[in-house]
Amino acid sequence: MKLTETEIQDRLSSLTGWASTGEAITREFVFKDFATAFGFMTSAALIAEKMNHHPEWSNVYNRVNVKLATHEVGGLSELDFELAERLNRLV
Amino acid sequence: MKLTETEIQDRLSSLTGWASTGEAITREFVFKDFATAFGFMTSAALIAEKMNHHPEWSNVYNRVNVKLATHEVGGLSELDFELAERLNRLV
Amino acid sequence: MKLTETEIQDRLSSLTGWASTGEAITREFVFKDFATAFGFMTSAALIAEKMNHHPEWSNVYNRVNVKLATHEVGGLSELDFELAERLNRLV
Amino acid sequence: MKLTETEIQDRLSSLTGWASTGEAITREFVFKDFATAFGFMTSAALIAEKMNHHPEWSNVYNRVNVKLATHEVGGLSELDFELAERLNRLV
Repeated sequence: MKLTETEIQDRLSSLTGWASTGEAITREFVFKDFATAFGFMTSAALIAEKMNHHPEWSNVYNRVNVKLATHEVGGLSELDFELAERLNRLV
Repeated sequence: MKLTETEIQDRLSSLTGWASTGEAITREFVFKDFATAFGFMTSAALIAEKMNHHPEWSNVYNRVNVKLATHEVGGLSELDFELAERLNRLV
Repeated sequence: MKLTETEIQDRLSSLTGWASTGEAITREFVFKDFATAFGFMTSAALIAEKMNHHPEWSNVYNRVNVKLATHEVGGLSELDFELAERLNRLV
Repeated sequence: MKLTETEIQDRLSSLTGWASTGEAITREFVFKDFATAFGFMTSAALIAEKMNHHPEWSNVYNRVNVKLATHEVGGLSELDFELAERLNRLV
């Protein structure tokens, strides 16, 4: 179910590091080098695959930019905040 | 050493799937699902780390977009074509 | 549900490369180098995590040894053969 | 160059969690789940590939057992302790 703007702001307020575009939430994760950045991506990939909810993400060396949205609802759903919370717990 | 436009076109002609923007070369790799796409990314990450030449890349589900350039030369170098060739060999 | 010896032999007959110890099935996968071996392991890890059925496995350079069993049944179950089949499809 | 037993004991004394068999050093790493265990393995794989010094290792769910040795010297070398130190820094 698509979250309302009020629901999004409420969830964001307790979610470190993430910002909302209204349509998606994004966070940049910065690591000390490529090996730790890609190790994070692999743990994140395993979590995403199990949830069957995949990020749109990019990487350059020690930086990983993650964008989460739920296409089925045309915006943000609880799934996005659940995945964001799990990714935060990895770092 | 920065490659000239002629050298770039010459190398591209024998490199399946890649295009040049002049400043970088790019290719989209498409897989059957997320598990195979991310397995490719992991093999690619290992090759890139060993060459100490890292891609700028993004992924959404079964798609991986790779962009290669050599910042030290302000354009493309032999390293980019060597990495591109190795990535092609993975698929 | 634990498979009988007859059921195990039946499933093994159509499963390339795997052998049974009665308690588990095993296969060694050999790749051209470490990068491709570990890329396979990552795809396999994603599949296993999604099935919530994890291998006992080891790796040395280009070799990956996989052992599958279902502890809950004290032997082999359909899950092991499903995962084995999916791993075979990766190579 | 092959390390002597005295050199091995000296290096082990400042290396948390590792034990020596004389021929190799080993450590078990335990994580909270498979996703974090395999993320560690991926970072470790990148480090190992760059050093061109690969572990003999196994994994079951949240446990990773690593064994390091240098076949070229028929025992342990500085490379093993360097890789062990880097793996320790990942956790």
